[in-house]
Amino acid sequence: MEIIDGNQVAATIIAELKAEVATFSGRKPCIALVRVGDDPASISYVKKKQATAAEIGMESRLFLPPVTITQAELCTLIDQLNADDTVDGILVQSPLPKGIEEVAVFRRIAAHKDVDGFHTLNLGKLAQEDETGFVACTPAGIMELLARANVTLAGKHVVVLGRSLIVGKPAALLAVQRKVWANATVTICHSQTANLPALTRQADVLIAAIGKAEFVTADMVKPGVVVIDVGVNRVPDASRKTGYRLTGDVHFPTVSPLCSKITPVPGGVGPMTVAMLMKNTVKAYRQSRAAA
Amino acid sequence: MEIIDGNQVAATIIAELKAEVATFSGRKPCIALVRVGDDPASISYVKKKQATAAEIGMESRLFLPPVTITQAELCTLIDQLNADDTVDGILVQSPLPKGIEEVAVFRRIAAHKDVDGFHTLNLGKLAQEDETGFVACTPAGIMELLARANVTLAGKHVVVLGRSLIVGKPAALLAVQRKVWANATVTICHSQTANLPALTRQADVLIAAIGKAEFVTADMVKPGVVVIDVGVNRVPDASRKTGYRLTGDVHFPTVSPLCSKITPVPGGVGPMTVAMLMKNTVKAYRQSRAAA
Repeated sequence: MEIIDGNQVAATIIAELKAEVATFSGRKPCIALVRVGDDPASISYVKKKQATAAEIGMESRLFLPPVTITQAELCTLIDQLNADDTVDGILVQSPLPKGIEEVAVFRRIAAHKDVDGFHTLNLGKLAQEDETGFVACTPAGIMELLARANVTLAGKHVVVLGRSLIVGKPAALLAVQRKVWANATVTICHSQTANLPALTRQADVLIAAIGKAEFVTADMVKPGVVVIDVGVNRVPDASRKTGYRLTGDVHFPTVSPLCSKITPVPGGVGPMTVAMLMKNTVKAYRQSRAAA
Repeated sequence: MEIIDGNQVAATIIAELKAEVATFSGRKPCIALVRVGDDPASISYVKKKQATAAEIGMESRLFLPPVTITQAELCTLIDQLNADDTVDGILVQSPLPKGIEEVAVFRRIAAHKDVDGFHTLNLGKLAQEDETGFVACTPAGIMELLARANVTLAGKHVVVLGRSLIVGKPAALLAVQRKVWANATVTICHSQTANLPALTRQADVLIAAIGKAEFVTADMVKPGVVVIDVGVNRVPDASRKTGYRLTGDVHFPTVSPLCSKITPVPGGVGPMTVAMLMKNTVKAYRQSRAAA
């Protein structure tokens, strides 16, 4: 059994981006980071994104509107960033304060700067296998993890547990593409699936993104499976100072011995998202230069 | 075994649309039909669409540019139709002459008039379960056939054979939606799938859209399955005047006895597409009125 080390893969991607950005003359790729209010988790996530951009040699610009900002004002800010030719990607940190319609704000971001990959047009491009679009960072990160762990998907059965808009569906749409790195047979399971273990046991690659702590147990996988655990769940743990520990959607102690490869939580998919955000931003920069 | 009669279901939908359109005061829903050149099949398809629109009490406007039209000129025509407030839906009949980039032309149609459901934005809305979008007529027709044949999908295993952009993928995205009429577990199989019969045999509902004549044989289905046959293939048949007969992707004589329900070819999915085109056009009309 091999642990797929997300931190290491992310570091490789960041090093590749750094090398690529070093070759860019003039203006460097720039990501605008919008953080509303002072949510502690958001502060930490945005800091990480700033630090990663700096490491790559990219520019990042931080916008810190107060928690009292109205939806209209936030949209005006996004419109300004959309119009700013020196901004390649726009990231609005979730969650937004109550009273602001998150989906409306995310969709305000111009599709060609939507490095989070949430825009309707980018999801459509994913379904159409149009590579000019941006794929959401988590599913894009899953595919990078698989590719760099030398897991070929062609003809394999990929079972995706979860049908969310930002993980399950785009992961399924990626795996089924007519691309040499894809071409998988794909099954999408979810909370209403009958005989779930019988289906997950067929998986050559199981992508667990159902948001339930340690949901996938040993009886639900076949020996030799590759497991990508997307879950990030807090479970009470009195032995920890924080009172909880992080766990994935997979019961790692019993499932991992059956796997050929598995991602841990934390340290699997998680670290990939920031790397993919930066990769998308560099792509947006390249595309905007090519169009100019 | 029950034959799902596509002609009858289509007639029901057309009657429903006729009743709805009769309640509209003032301008009626209008579809612009663009047919380039004189391809005999296209002439017949467009005639059928005109006749169906007339039956419903909708307006249709026929545009017949010559086969020599340039792509730029065709795009200018589409731009005019996009801008025309009295046109609700635009249908450009496929195939277009060689030298014209079909995808570019289809994508020129404004998303809110794209009653064929090919626009990137409409595919994105389908993935996002945003019901303001337009779903391509064949997959939309499949779901109507299933619903009106009282086939519930929730928790069932729908296996889609084929991953095309206009049938396989949208059908899969529809069946997996968090909607009371959907909520299926979905598997997408295709030409590169390993152990295909083992997968299709798991289907509670099998949607065959692989474009290979009589590809699905009795050993590939389980007793009681519901089969939707999307294929339209010509196979040589010396006993026919035309020299060929139409057949689906399913070997009907041996598969149908195993089915609880099955669509025939012809007379199954085929008749649904024109009905769904009209249904989309009426929806476009409703949405444009609501926005006005």
